[in-house]
Amino acid sequence: MTDADVRAHLDALAKPRGSLGRLEDIAVRLARTQDRLDPRTRPRRIVLFAGDHGCVADGVSAWPSAVTGMMVATILTGRATSNALAAAHECPLRLVDVGVAGPRIEHAPAFFRDARVADGTASLARGAAMTAAQFEAAWQVGAEEADAAIDDGAALLIAGEMGIGNTTPAAALTVLLTGLPAAPAVGRGAGADAAIVANKTRIVADAVARVAPGLAGDTLGTIAAVVGYEIAAMAGFFARGGARGATLLLDGYVATAAALVAERLAPGSVRAMIAGHRSAEPGHAAALAQLGLEPLLDWGMRLGEGSGALVALPLLDAAAAVLCDVARLDAIGAERAD
Amino acid sequence: MTDADVRAHLDALAKPRGSLGRLEDIAVRLARTQDRLDPRTRPRRIVLFAGDHGCVADGVSAWPSAVTGMMVATILTGRATSNALAAAHECPLRLVDVGVAGPRIEHAPAFFRDARVADGTASLARGAAMTAAQFEAAWQVGAEEADAAIDDGAALLIAGEMGIGNTTPAAALTVLLTGLPAAPAVGRGAGADAAIVANKTRIVADAVARVAPGLAGDTLGTIAAVVGYEIAAMAGFFARGGARGATLLLDGYVATAAALVAERLAPGSVRAMIAGHRSAEPGHAAALAQLGLEPLLDWGMRLGEGSGALVALPLLDAAAAVLCDVARLDAIGAERAD
Repeated sequence: MTDADVRAHLDALAKPRGSLGRLEDIAVRLARTQDRLDPRTRPRRIVLFAGDHGCVADGVSAWPSAVTGMMVATILTGRATSNALAAAHECPLRLVDVGVAGPRIEHAPAFFRDARVADGTASLARGAAMTAAQFEAAWQVGAEEADAAIDDGAALLIAGEMGIGNTTPAAALTVLLTGLPAAPAVGRGAGADAAIVANKTRIVADAVARVAPGLAGDTLGTIAAVVGYEIAAMAGFFARGGARGATLLLDGYVATAAALVAERLAPGSVRAMIAGHRSAEPGHAAALAQLGLEPLLDWGMRLGEGSGALVALPLLDAAAAVLCDVARLDAIGAERAD
Repeated sequence: MTDADVRAHLDALAKPRGSLGRLEDIAVRLARTQDRLDPRTRPRRIVLFAGDHGCVADGVSAWPSAVTGMMVATILTGRATSNALAAAHECPLRLVDVGVAGPRIEHAPAFFRDARVADGTASLARGAAMTAAQFEAAWQVGAEEADAAIDDGAALLIAGEMGIGNTTPAAALTVLLTGLPAAPAVGRGAGADAAIVANKTRIVADAVARVAPGLAGDTLGTIAAVVGYEIAAMAGFFARGGARGATLLLDGYVATAAALVAERLAPGSVRAMIAGHRSAEPGHAAALAQLGLEPLLDWGMRLGEGSGALVALPLLDAAAAVLCDVARLDAIGAERAD
């Protein structure tokens, strides 16, 4: 099936040709991700992966690592932004601790999974963030989550994250995998001031300079040196989900860094991806460009938790509805006049 | 309640300040339309108003007037674009014949209403499209529909239209009420070629030149001379819906022309309005600017039937969910660090 096949289907419907503008482009992309003219957006699922980052101790974030655990607890009460948006758009949500540093959750609801690989990463400012084996363990957690969702019928997957400090590994991965310099790859994250941004930029530049020579020879080990557990898990989630035919709706900078990792380690994963939005983080545009993706929204969002993808999700519902549920013009007895 | 009150509420939530970007601006607008920090987007309703236009006989459209009736019949089967999008976003739909020229619908489902004021307008190319009394009758149909929706609990209203040729009265109203010249107000509508566009532009310019001197003295009668039945009904729907406190989500060029009429005849209606999108019709931007509205999407849509508003609708659901369902930061035990 080609783009032209989808366009021909759209052009046969009971509406002026091309009259849904950008929504028709999105419909084409959505159909191609599932290789069918009647793609589905339900059932769907969002899986949030949580992890902590050793580099927070080196001053890369406005917020302390303890806030990761606080937000995990908030998500478990159902009152975080991601819960609110997921409920609004009928997207079942799961939360996976794949590398939080704080106390483990006890007596959690069924949508929580403790799959912690380690109590946060080591600091990429001072050495490898994790070992290759730890990377593979986190990747596997993500792949298992994709399998579980698809086994439950999911046709569309979103990965979100919670991890104070995680725009730093996201920037390092973007620099490592796109060639963007560190300065334009580093932004304010969740509210860093100019001094923090300067420090974060230096840390990202130094870390990438240190590990980049190994990328061609030991791709996985090099990525592991600057990644986070939640990012590794999202990458495994994307690679497995894409391989099994689900549509992957990307969130912001951190999720897109995971998408870069997935595409590098499992080439072709990008075929399943749709970019939900372009975030306020300055490096996000370069990451999306590397993947050849046009975002659905460009609203300056930078919250994480999959929130941007959740806001964009019903735009795919609309595209699917047009493809699946509109009569053909010839079926209503009219002839095309445009 | 002021914008600052809504911003203060958003800034107290468990997320980085401003981290939802444009969605926060939309949340502010939504809250202001209902004058409450916890605005509702459900129940909601879309009412499609259908009418025909005498000027089609003067060559303003690529499609014959008979297609209006065909599309009415298609909407009644539930297989038009508007049905598909309304179902995808759980927005109950009604269809009102307020001025179709073809045969009357018999044995229609309960969501249809026959409130035909006349069998299409007279041609605005050759005289007044309708009388002031006919305008008031159509306006009243729209007001009744708003009353019925709000009496049923609707907090958010969309008006859509079906009417071959109706971008011509929309352009005439935009020229009349914004002062835009005819050429930039006239576009391709549902697929007109350059010759049709040139003819349409001349007809619009001539009609407005003929009626405009009467605008200040006889505003209603002057509008009636270049309006359509479905546009008059939408204007009444907006005026009544806004006066009763519902949020009004605007579709494209024709709906926005009706919004201009509503604001002119019932000043203050604009306070309830949110623009769903900016359409491909070149005059739409000027009409939105006249109302001071920023569209949610700019996707080059130009289908009508309320389709652009329906695509944008869940963006308001997301804004409402953030306002209503997210915990405060102080409630989760964290202190603001940004």
